[in-house]
Amino acid sequence: MNRASIGIFDSGFGGLTVWKALSSLLPHENLSYFADTLHLPYGNKTQEEIIKYSFQSIETLASKGIKLLVVACHTSCLNALPFLEKRFPFPIVGIASSGIEELLFLKKADHLAFLATHASVASGVYQKKIQEKFPFAKVTGIACPLFVPLVENGHTNHPILTKQAVKEDLRHLKDLPLDAVLLGCTHYPLLKNSIQEELGSHIQLIDPSMACAAQVQKILQKNHLETDNTQFPLYEFYVTANPVKFQTVGKLFLPSLSYPTLCSVTPSFA
Amino acid sequence: MNRASIGIFDSGFGGLTVWKALSSLLPHENLSYFADTLHLPYGNKTQEEIIKYSFQSIETLASKGIKLLVVACHTSCLNALPFLEKRFPFPIVGIASSGIEELLFLKKADHLAFLATHASVASGVYQKKIQEKFPFAKVTGIACPLFVPLVENGHTNHPILTKQAVKEDLRHLKDLPLDAVLLGCTHYPLLKNSIQEELGSHIQLIDPSMACAAQVQKILQKNHLETDNTQFPLYEFYVTANPVKFQTVGKLFLPSLSYPTLCSVTPSFA
Repeated sequence: MNRASIGIFDSGFGGLTVWKALSSLLPHENLSYFADTLHLPYGNKTQEEIIKYSFQSIETLASKGIKLLVVACHTSCLNALPFLEKRFPFPIVGIASSGIEELLFLKKADHLAFLATHASVASGVYQKKIQEKFPFAKVTGIACPLFVPLVENGHTNHPILTKQAVKEDLRHLKDLPLDAVLLGCTHYPLLKNSIQEELGSHIQLIDPSMACAAQVQKILQKNHLETDNTQFPLYEFYVTANPVKFQTVGKLFLPSLSYPTLCSVTPSFA
Repeated sequence: MNRASIGIFDSGFGGLTVWKALSSLLPHENLSYFADTLHLPYGNKTQEEIIKYSFQSIETLASKGIKLLVVACHTSCLNALPFLEKRFPFPIVGIASSGIEELLFLKKADHLAFLATHASVASGVYQKKIQEKFPFAKVTGIACPLFVPLVENGHTNHPILTKQAVKEDLRHLKDLPLDAVLLGCTHYPLLKNSIQEELGSHIQLIDPSMACAAQVQKILQKNHLETDNTQFPLYEFYVTANPVKFQTVGKLFLPSLSYPTLCSVTPSFA
């Protein structure tokens, strides 16, 4: 039994979809969310910088006492995870591998696609990681540059704008004989309905956030780290910059969370 | 007479609209464009960082020999211009003040609006600078978060998507009795037609890039710095990171430029 928090680290807001999955599957666990908003987006940083900023963020988060860490930032996962695992003593779950693990449950995986930011697709790392598990599958990576601005501005259900933007960003997938499409960016689950509608109901969408929460649950059980709290848990949010924007955008991700103070600010580090 | 280049500095691609205005008004002048793509966007940086990155960029550009500098980045103008003017010996023209100067030609300026990035609007600097010139006018600043992703992904004339996105971002302006709307981000002139259509033809749109080019022409004439070249001029592009993306996006801004190599890469600085 352990009442310490589960830490969730992201460069920005996207990890709040993971927060949501965790709070729904593990409703009594304390959660501490850390967003390195000073340095977002990580996508245009060098690997060295991504490792440095991830270290700094997680060290700050760890200083508050956490029993497990979720790296909810795909870019940090793809570039820094092995280094983080060496450095920190607690178990670490990476959102990118949660998504890929989830693909293993597919009945048919001849042609897979993943949707991600331009930087993730261009790096080729995601492609390589999927191909390692599915050496004979065709894997198509598609950058969806309009999705993050749509989500961060609340346009997740606009009858025309959302539909058209999703149509545009997915135009290269339209007629491919796909078995499944992985949502490779934590913002994208908020557009799940529109994506599914555009691709058709025969294509399976993989949202790594639920898989990630399930993996966290398993690790807690295996290591006897579950909380014995039965009350409403403690939720904390830390950002390195722009707390007001975090509150505004955070409400789009978590409309039902009505905490008087959604976030605290850590002294920003350079 | 002086055959040195006119330098154009921006954090990214937007300044290419200024490049276009300069190459059209001053077709024989050599132009050197420097994009600090390693550190873009400047909007989420501290003033100290913006000054530091602007210095570094302009020093590199200056080392190639320039006779005049255009700061085509609104964020750099609003945060660093006075420091840059003290540091460098050549005349400097800032895109932000070009836009504000242009407002002075209006016949009526009771209610003005400016469109800009979220960071520019939130900083309040633009608002303050306009209000200094128009102390009795009502000034409304509107963040247009969908415009940059639209432009950078080539959706400047999509029959549905562009129209809807422009409609969404301008929804708070729709029924205001505006006299003029200033395009306070260098990407926005590429959406000029859709913006004009959405606001109505009775509202005057101010595009600072042509005003900026006209100001450059005046300074060159006054200081006898015009080139005596009558041939096709030399165009150079430097970026601090991601040259391939610069080429791709650059072509959206400058479709008619068919240089074999659109850009050179400077060694990136940290």
